[in-house]
Amino acid sequence: MATYVYDFSEGNKDLKDLLGGKGANLAEMTRLGLPVPPGFTITTEACRAYMSSGELPPELRVEVTMALRRLEDTLGRALGDFHDPLLVSVRSGAKYSMPGMMETVLNIGLNDASVQGLTKFSGDERFAWDSYRRLIQMFGKTVLDIDGDRFADALDAMKVARGVTADTDLTAADLHELVEQFKTIVREESGREFPQHPREQLDLAITAVFNSWNTDRARLYRRRERIPNDLGTAVNVVSMVFGNLGENSGTGVCFTRDPATGRTGDYGDYLPNAQGEDVVAGIRNTLTLADFEELDPTSFAELRQAMRRLETHYRDLCDIEFTVERGKLWMLQTRVGKRTAGAAFRIATQLVDEHLITLDEALERVTGAQLSKLMFPQFDVDADRTLLATGMAASPGAAVGAAVFSSATAQERAAAGEDVILVRRETNPDDLGGMIAAVGVLTSRGGKTSHAAVVARGMGTTCVVGADALDVDVVARTITVGDVVVREGETIAIDGSSGEIFLGSVPVVPSPVVHYLEEGLDAALAHLPEGDEETAELVRAVDRVLTHADTVRRLRVHANADTAPDAHRARSWGAQGIGLCRTEHMFLGERRVLIERLILAADDGEREAALEALLPLQRTDFEDLLTEMDGLPTTIRLIDPPLHEFLPDLTELSVQVALAQERGESGEQVERDRALLAAVQRMHEANPMLGLRGVRLGLVVPGLFALQIRAVAEASARRLRAGGRPHAEIMVPLAASVMELFLVRDEAERLIAEVAEAEGVELSIPVGAMIELPRAALTADRMAQAAEFFSFGTNDLTQTTWGFSRDDVEGAFFSEYTERGVISVSPFETIDRRGVGRLVRIAVEEGRRARPDLTLGVCGEHGGDPESVHFFHEVGLDYVSCSPFRVPVARLEAGRAAVSSGGDQTR
Amino acid sequence: MATYVYDFSEGNKDLKDLLGGKGANLAEMTRLGLPVPPGFTITTEACRAYMSSGELPPELRVEVTMALRRLEDTLGRALGDFHDPLLVSVRSGAKYSMPGMMETVLNIGLNDASVQGLTKFSGDERFAWDSYRRLIQMFGKTVLDIDGDRFADALDAMKVARGVTADTDLTAADLHELVEQFKTIVREESGREFPQHPREQLDLAITAVFNSWNTDRARLYRRRERIPNDLGTAVNVVSMVFGNLGENSGTGVCFTRDPATGRTGDYGDYLPNAQGEDVVAGIRNTLTLADFEELDPTSFAELRQAMRRLETHYRDLCDIEFTVERGKLWMLQTRVGKRTAGAAFRIATQLVDEHLITLDEALERVTGAQLSKLMFPQFDVDADRTLLATGMAASPGAAVGAAVFSSATAQERAAAGEDVILVRRETNPDDLGGMIAAVGVLTSRGGKTSHAAVVARGMGTTCVVGADALDVDVVARTITVGDVVVREGETIAIDGSSGEIFLGSVPVVPSPVVHYLEEGLDAALAHLPEGDEETAELVRAVDRVLTHADTVRRLRVHANADTAPDAHRARSWGAQGIGLCRTEHMFLGERRVLIERLILAADDGEREAALEALLPLQRTDFEDLLTEMDGLPTTIRLIDPPLHEFLPDLTELSVQVALAQERGESGEQVERDRALLAAVQRMHEANPMLGLRGVRLGLVVPGLFALQIRAVAEASARRLRAGGRPHAEIMVPLAASVMELFLVRDEAERLIAEVAEAEGVELSIPVGAMIELPRAALTADRMAQAAEFFSFGTNDLTQTTWGFSRDDVEGAFFSEYTERGVISVSPFETIDRRGVGRLVRIAVEEGRRARPDLTLGVCGEHGGDPESVHFFHEVGLDYVSCSPFRVPVARLEAGRAAVSSGGDQTR
Repeated sequence: MATYVYDFSEGNKDLKDLLGGKGANLAEMTRLGLPVPPGFTITTEACRAYMSSGELPPELRVEVTMALRRLEDTLGRALGDFHDPLLVSVRSGAKYSMPGMMETVLNIGLNDASVQGLTKFSGDERFAWDSYRRLIQMFGKTVLDIDGDRFADALDAMKVARGVTADTDLTAADLHELVEQFKTIVREESGREFPQHPREQLDLAITAVFNSWNTDRARLYRRRERIPNDLGTAVNVVSMVFGNLGENSGTGVCFTRDPATGRTGDYGDYLPNAQGEDVVAGIRNTLTLADFEELDPTSFAELRQAMRRLETHYRDLCDIEFTVERGKLWMLQTRVGKRTAGAAFRIATQLVDEHLITLDEALERVTGAQLSKLMFPQFDVDADRTLLATGMAASPGAAVGAAVFSSATAQERAAAGEDVILVRRETNPDDLGGMIAAVGVLTSRGGKTSHAAVVARGMGTTCVVGADALDVDVVARTITVGDVVVREGETIAIDGSSGEIFLGSVPVVPSPVVHYLEEGLDAALAHLPEGDEETAELVRAVDRVLTHADTVRRLRVHANADTAPDAHRARSWGAQGIGLCRTEHMFLGERRVLIERLILAADDGEREAALEALLPLQRTDFEDLLTEMDGLPTTIRLIDPPLHEFLPDLTELSVQVALAQERGESGEQVERDRALLAAVQRMHEANPMLGLRGVRLGLVVPGLFALQIRAVAEASARRLRAGGRPHAEIMVPLAASVMELFLVRDEAERLIAEVAEAEGVELSIPVGAMIELPRAALTADRMAQAAEFFSFGTNDLTQTTWGFSRDDVEGAFFSEYTERGVISVSPFETIDRRGVGRLVRIAVEEGRRARPDLTLGVCGEHGGDPESVHFFHEVGLDYVSCSPFRVPVARLEAGRAAVSSGGDQTR
Repeated sequence: MATYVYDFSEGNKDLKDLLGGKGANLAEMTRLGLPVPPGFTITTEACRAYMSSGELPPELRVEVTMALRRLEDTLGRALGDFHDPLLVSVRSGAKYSMPGMMETVLNIGLNDASVQGLTKFSGDERFAWDSYRRLIQMFGKTVLDIDGDRFADALDAMKVARGVTADTDLTAADLHELVEQFKTIVREESGREFPQHPREQLDLAITAVFNSWNTDRARLYRRRERIPNDLGTAVNVVSMVFGNLGENSGTGVCFTRDPATGRTGDYGDYLPNAQGEDVVAGIRNTLTLADFEELDPTSFAELRQAMRRLETHYRDLCDIEFTVERGKLWMLQTRVGKRTAGAAFRIATQLVDEHLITLDEALERVTGAQLSKLMFPQFDVDADRTLLATGMAASPGAAVGAAVFSSATAQERAAAGEDVILVRRETNPDDLGGMIAAVGVLTSRGGKTSHAAVVARGMGTTCVVGADALDVDVVARTITVGDVVVREGETIAIDGSSGEIFLGSVPVVPSPVVHYLEEGLDAALAHLPEGDEETAELVRAVDRVLTHADTVRRLRVHANADTAPDAHRARSWGAQGIGLCRTEHMFLGERRVLIERLILAADDGEREAALEALLPLQRTDFEDLLTEMDGLPTTIRLIDPPLHEFLPDLTELSVQVALAQERGESGEQVERDRALLAAVQRMHEANPMLGLRGVRLGLVVPGLFALQIRAVAEASARRLRAGGRPHAEIMVPLAASVMELFLVRDEAERLIAEVAEAEGVELSIPVGAMIELPRAALTADRMAQAAEFFSFGTNDLTQTTWGFSRDDVEGAFFSEYTERGVISVSPFETIDRRGVGRLVRIAVEEGRRARPDLTLGVCGEHGGDPESVHFFHEVGLDYVSCSPFRVPVARLEAGRAAVSSGGDQTR
């Protein structure tokens, strides 16, 4: 027989699975000798048994009886007693905290008889009837599912009838009458009498708590927080203590350090003559702990001692609920407290300095998500703001600027010193200039991995996408939302962490942590306002933890960067190489025309001319990049343009040509458009993502890859001759078969040897494969025969493994899918371990078996996602590569992964 | 030390890997005691050693010396001897026959001295000098790489000078002079003397044969025939015998049965006083074997005996080359002969009747490709025809009809009794009516798995696609190719097996095998012209072999069929169920409008109205289908429309709206178009293949799947009440996660129970998953928790595993990829075992582990591909499903797979 009931004296804090968080911690405090009101916990196992059978297990009823008898014996009181009744609270408590989600019933044990006993015990008739009134009200709502308004209305009516405004002004007689009214409501609404038998009250309350596990709001909350649905909740039955028995009673909440800032020292609120729910309801203003000390120094001293005891015991910030009943302190709850990002770093290093935890443990106490929160400037939450709409949070930060509707305007106004926010329906590579110039990017279409989102994230520019409530008209240069029209030049503000879009300006708070990351500790500290010790402590804490992460991590951290300035930033933020240089991003403006000409070339002559014009440009690109990344690996991906992004839009061009014809226009331009339309029609692809891309394009368009390989080799040779240490690597995109790799590798080897010969240098430029198709992963043993390294392109790998187009899919049904629980997190944000992750695992194992010195990395968006970094550590990659802005996060998480895997993961 | 040389007396026919086909068979004939000229074989291992080191292995030189000495001893002649010289031929011989690809040098051993010896031995000076002339010519061309025209020109000049026209009119003196001229050519062209030392001749000839393995044409041939590049060739050194030593000499080729028709009895050609190369060159008309018998009854009798001996020994049709030298028969080569499809079936059953092979073996002697050749009507190859262009062969057959350019015209003219060929740039579901009405379909765009190709193949309609030389103008209703213009109504002919398009009519030969398959053996035989015993034998042979295949196969064969008439045909051709009913094909014409309305519905009312109109239509569809398939499993796939196929084209509609605006048009229609355009823009997907499809659409559009599930359940209930045996199954398309399956399954269970209750019947309708995304395969253990069956959709699985869109990719670079050896066969035609196949294997193993009674099938195009059928047998599927027309092929190949796996594959 399973044991369904644990007395507080039997459990401990490590039994959260079984006793829930609250129960386990109550047991732990009891074990520590702290003053916890006696009670017992009904296990999550009992809840699961209830959920599967639909009724309370018979053994549970017996065990509850035994536990109740023990409780009555301990306290010398009995449930329902006419003289000195035992009252208990029934509270839910799951493994993971689900604040406000589930049910509590207080004052179980009160009935028409024991209310007299309570009067005697408390000497306060009003208190006794008020307690009874509260029981019926809570019980009716929670257990009997009666609309709470019925009770609230009756209470209000009574106050009106008595001509009073506060509950406390009602007399014992009023409350007695109200109890009778409440009983009538129960009878009318539930068709039954309010149960007078205390054990029946208790059993029904326990059942109600179990049932509350499966309410819609609880399920929704769990989905959002990714808590499994089958855990169930424990139930705590605790003997009641009362903070509302006069001025020498009260109730409070306290923390062992400030959870908002991380400041050391006690912190909390106290409310005299009140119960816990009164604190939550915020009816009266609370007092500080200092006030409490003044009111009741003995209780405060005892509390102080308990706080110290708990923090030492839990070795972390504790969050405590307590009650004083007529001068006697009772501990009602404790847990490791939640805290802000800044507090997390400060507290972690404080505890190290206090020799309570090690630096390894400090590293486990903070997260990459917290670090990235510290990195973004944020809107001042206290300021006035007017919400215009909400889109998807695509790249964090807080940006304020003039709305502009074209790349050209953005560059123009930015050059004139103005902060601008580029607003587009969606962006394409032509918008890049404007995106670089803008402080923020806002689109009305596209998902979190749309062009706008990916590029903005790469640049660390604040970005909100897919705000479909906005009607963006780039011709009229307006945003329309209902009646509101925003014209070009008007100020808007976007919050890339929340997706909110505000009308007008909102004040912004800058981040000292970014100063530190960019310029180092000393510079960042020097930059702080005189005497801002708190922030200084925070910056030092970040430095200490991050430095430790760098020491312990096994994963190297590279950055995705396409230009020398990107590379510079990446390096200053700690990137140990470039894991992905997307060369197609180099083809903008003039060069894009050359690429278009190359792809649409009618003959070899046209093609050769385009190639010849491109070679010196590309060589300079790579030389600059290799100069910036001197001594560090620099992985250059051969061009992988989605064809349609490099050609005019079919629909727009068709309309243009049709209109020209309709208007009877003629001339050279019309002829050119007509010819271009024919070419675009010929090259048009129904599914460009699955079309002529990557290595396919490279093998079909003569000279394209050769141009780039030659440019890389020549740039390397020049750097070598200039005394540099270039470490270029060439990456082949979208290979599905080893044959593709062999063809490119053979050509690369030939070209590199040619350049080495011509330039008189020794060139070693490894050629590797981007693993971004399921087939590449499934045939990794063969791919490794031709590739010296693998880099997982997990964006595309996710698209093909799931058959989702990231552009199309996120808007269309992700919200529906999240709502219905099909997915809990977008597989484009956090790697899907079961599907995509399995392919990665297969490729790592089989690739390395075929070539033991194969270098393995990841360069998809997941490289900067905390949870995914842990996965990549586990499967044994050598590095992750992410956008420069995410490099610190990846460094931290790689350190955390190394610590939490206990270092037994040697590669 | 490896043995590089095998005497003919040492090898046997099973050593083809080592000795090549020719060498192994020469050894086998020697072992049988047949008169083979003595000789030896240099192994493929020697060739591989040569290819890797670039020179002949030294051990090889020694072994050749030993073998030559043995040969000289046996024959009592010596190489280069002045009195009675030994001459040898040097011939290539790889494991797989590569006709015409590689090199041969005859008469090695002749030089200025031994030409005298040959004169003495033969008593024919002219013959000796002619042989010498031939040696220098062949050697010069083959070994020394001299342009053959130099020799041919000199020969022609000599004939002109002598005033003769035939080689044979040149005298010994002329030939002697020609030898000297040839030597001069050798000196001039190669910078060296023609080697006089016989051993040097031999070594150089061996090297030349080895080198011929790696010529471009040989590599190309191997790529086409899928022969590995690293096998290498063997070299046969055979003592020369001469068929050109007078009228009692000669040479011939014979077969033990007729390889063209399969008729029993000898069959061959004989050319007196000639060498083998003369037969190939076709200079003189050959004689029949009967003529040969008359000329030389003794040699003929000996040949006859050898033929019988060989056929009995090889237990198959043998193809033999022989030479008679002055009345003595020599066997120069034998091998199992190639044959036509019809001959294959006839010979296989003949050999069974002759008790030479078993029926199991007969089954292994024929292929599905041969059966399908027998099924298609073909153009009469002897008729005059004018080739217009060549496209891709998409669905075999030979169709002749009037070119029509719209579905409506096709239906109209076909209804009037005319044969029509529907010509379109590409087809879409709206063309289906026309495609059904047409005898053939021709498109200028799209690949082998485009809509046109897939649908035509499914219907067994002849189809050629992607004929991009055709300029198809559906408005002007013309096809233009260069100067040629074909107008609507003019006759064209298309060959779906070759992709050829002919101008005008071409006579067609119908298939008796189809009569058999459709109507059974007796009906087919009755249908034949009086006395056509040959065809009758063929039809009986097909029946016997196919019936045997049905007996031994483990795989069931289902068909992909969307309508009751399809199902009827499938069933008559032997389908044991429907493996895939594509319900989206049911939504044409009026119904398509309803689906469009459903998808674009602005509110619940519109949606409900559309659903209500569709329910009775769908119910009737399914009732008809289940009636036709009474008693057999019928798998109905819930609707999976690529969204764009059900909506107007964005570009066309944009042009239309822009033009209307330009023209200042207004009115209701303009407003409607404008609204429609907005909706289409909203729903537009960059990559529809990866977009809102399959189960995603079903979960997003309320009521869509429920409609279909209800229709299936109600149709089943009606069939049950009518005494039928419906076995409907519901298949969920495009699931990537088990959660999607659970959601649909739960809804299905609820609806089915509801219908069962309402109709008062017991309904059992399994719900399963189409496995067509990598993630579905990778998480098969979980998918199996919700699915009662899996059906692999290998088309889509191939698209996502490779990241190829079949529509876009085939045209764009498949030809380039095939040319460069990246792929040898389209993975859309034959399953890619290494990539896609691995996913299938994973899903089969892990799915079955999770649910041991899981039913497993395949419903992609691969279900009817012979090689793929063997794979599906190996991995243990329960059934394959293919288009009705391919059902007989699948039955045959499933039988062959069972026989060749030795039946040890229990599931």
